[in-house]
Order: sequence, then structure tokens, then C-alpha cells
Amino acid sequence: MQHFNINNLNKIFDNRIRVGIMSVLSVNNVLSFNDLKELLQLTDGNLATHLKTLEDNGYISVKKGFIGRKTNTTYNITEQGRKAFQEHLDALEKIIRQMK
Amino acid sequence: MQHFNINNLNKIFDNRIRVGIMSVLSVNNVLSFNDLKELLQLTDGNLATHLKTLEDNGYISVKKGFIGRKTNTTYNITEQGRKAFQEHLDALEKIIRQMK
Repeated sequence: MQHFNINNLNKIFDNRIRVGIMSVLSVNNVLSFNDLKELLQLTDGNLATHLKTLEDNGYISVKKGFIGRKTNTTYNITEQGRKAFQEHLDALEKIIRQMK
Repeated sequence: MQHFNINNLNKIFDNRIRVGIMSVLSVNNVLSFNDLKELLQLTDGNLATHLKTLEDNGYISVKKGFIGRKTNTTYNITEQGRKAFQEHLDALEKIIRQMK
């Protein structure tokens, strides 16, 4: 029997929307709520929920600012988030390689 | 802004236990409940729930048999399951490649 190690897969990334958020923040550095919404084609509520989970886990940080009188909230990935996401992708890559 | 396509990620595989089940069934063909439990190091209830979800989606098939007087339930991946899982892994691989 061939064994696969799923214990290195991160439970927080058991969700394709969270995978999407981490992916776009990994390469784009800082993004606004609207950028994220557009890039991932999500509704406000759905996006907000998953951003909150990632923030609560210390994987992204949130900065509330203003452009003129309009609020402008931006998001970026933390060092901890970058490390955790990379480990998750490495574990996935190992599983994918084992199956080829 | 760099875009990532998360729409080709399959919602059913938004769970590392289901990823694990599909992975081990992909390479081992037929496995019993106890084989799966051992390979993935899960409790009975946890494993049963996820097997049911995969079965309900037509991704695995279940065969109830006997060894002597003891029940022996075996699981294998369906053609539909193999295809869906492969598409999911291909989509993941694309995301991983975009990030390198």
C-alpha cells in the first residue's frame, strides 16, 4: 500500500477561496478589498469571511486607510502566512508528484 | 495585478482528508476501510463521513462483502472520480507553477 502524508497540508488552506487569497497576495504584495474581489470574482460577504479567518490566524494583515474621504482597506501577506502557505504548497506538490 | 484561476479547483476536494482518500485510492486501486484508516491515520467517524461525501458525489464506489462471517467493505475510485481529481490536481499545479 502506498502512503500519502496529508498531515503537512494546512487545515486553514482546506478552502479554495483561502488558497486564492493567499496566492494573489503572495505575488501582488498589497491589494485592496476591491482588487481581491475582482481578482477572485467573489461577493463581499464571502470574501470578508475568509479574509477574517486568515487575519485571525496571523496569515494576512489589514490596514485601514483613506483615499480622500473614502475608506480604503488594504491587505498583505505576513511572513508567517507566507511560510505557512509555502509549506502547504510543498506538501501538495509532494502528493501530486507521488501520483505521476 | 496577477490573476489566479481558482474556479477549476473542485469544492469537494477543499478538504485534506478527501484529498488523502482520493490520493491513496488513485494508486492502490482497492482498499478496505481499515486500510484507509491506517494509511490516513483517522478515526472511524471522521473517515466514514468523508467516504460518504465522496460516494454521494460518484467519486468512489463501495462494495460490501464478507471474509468468512466478518463484513469486509472495500472502496475504489470511479472513472468520474479519477477524472475530477486529476482536473483538481492540474488546477493546483498551475497555481503552484505561477507562484515559482
